[in-house]
Amino acid sequence: MTEKKSGNVFVISAPSGCGKTTVVKKVIGSTTCLERSVSVTTRKPRTGERPGRDYQFISENVFKRKVKNGDFLEWAQNFGYYYGTLRKHITDVLKKGSDIILTIDVKGAAQIQRKMPGSVLVFIMPPNCEELARRLKKRATDDAKAVEERLRTARREITQAAKYDYHIVNDNLSDAVLKLKAIIIAKRCEIKKARQRSRKEVAA
Amino acid sequence: MTEKKSGNVFVISAPSGCGKTTVVKKVIGSTTCLERSVSVTTRKPRTGERPGRDYQFISENVFKRKVKNGDFLEWAQNFGYYYGTLRKHITDVLKKGSDIILTIDVKGAAQIQRKMPGSVLVFIMPPNCEELARRLKKRATDDAKAVEERLRTARREITQAAKYDYHIVNDNLSDAVLKLKAIIIAKRCEIKKARQRSRKEVAA
Repeated sequence: MTEKKSGNVFVISAPSGCGKTTVVKKVIGSTTCLERSVSVTTRKPRTGERPGRDYQFISENVFKRKVKNGDFLEWAQNFGYYYGTLRKHITDVLKKGSDIILTIDVKGAAQIQRKMPGSVLVFIMPPNCEELARRLKKRATDDAKAVEERLRTARREITQAAKYDYHIVNDNLSDAVLKLKAIIIAKRCEIKKARQRSRKEVAA
Repeated sequence: MTEKKSGNVFVISAPSGCGKTTVVKKVIGSTTCLERSVSVTTRKPRTGERPGRDYQFISENVFKRKVKNGDFLEWAQNFGYYYGTLRKHITDVLKKGSDIILTIDVKGAAQIQRKMPGSVLVFIMPPNCEELARRLKKRATDDAKAVEERLRTARREITQAAKYDYHIVNDNLSDAVLKLKAIIIAKRCEIKKARQRSRKEVAA
């Protein structure tokens, strides 16, 4: 009475300082059939980074060829280096029946949503602006101006949050983990989109 | 950055023998801000039943007046008695910001869905027909003919399951409880329907 489903794509965005990385790490560590998307980049590995685990490291030439081939679901350039998500990496995980999580900014999320409309978009929120400012100040070696810039970026990103499917306010780490896991588990119980599109009233 | 939401309505249906009552009881016992809908009936209380907890017991005259007034979200007649769900009972719980669960058959679910289109419909499935038959035979003092009749009803109900929002296969009680809780928690994180209807691509 059940059918084998292919996996779901979960796109997680959050302003920096919202605990996105920690939440996602804890959810992946405690959920079966769930993988983290490994991005491709042209920058060199940093100390402690493992190719294939943290990033897939490739040359700029190879990256640009992949862009030309349309191999990326999304890509961007930051500080002179390229970063991207390969479509095949995502579809390989989905075909196994596993779900995949991408932690990505609002621009990347928009690209993913266009190319994979069934993706589930989750925005992690700070409890409030004051708390976000406190976290950014505490964490950063940044000066006041840099903190102010990060806060401006955060406010701009938060204006996009209304377009996501789910919001998680991270005022408590374990609650935020529980909520993201709940969204993933609920999605697995949801009936397929094709059926939902043709959904009619329950006729008795 | 968050707003106070009114609660959600969860409608749970399942063929008899699927463990619906146990699953719902466990979920309500372990979830905050979640109440069980108390139906109204014209039958007399059975031993151990408490008015207001198990049912609201009223006379047939009062019931029929409420039907005429349009007070019911759904109602039905079974073996000469009337059963129904009062709209005000549901909206009072929702206004407090709590969620409410109704365990109800596919006909009742159809009525609820028509009158409250935002309701979340969850169908609890048996692992398979053989297991359902085994459970019904084990449980029942019924003769073989009665078991066969219940199985026929179950098969008919299962054909309606595709029209629900979520399916939970109850092959393991604690997994089924976890899944129903996940659906409820995820729904609380979901952005409001009005926004979803006007949902556009995430514009970066």
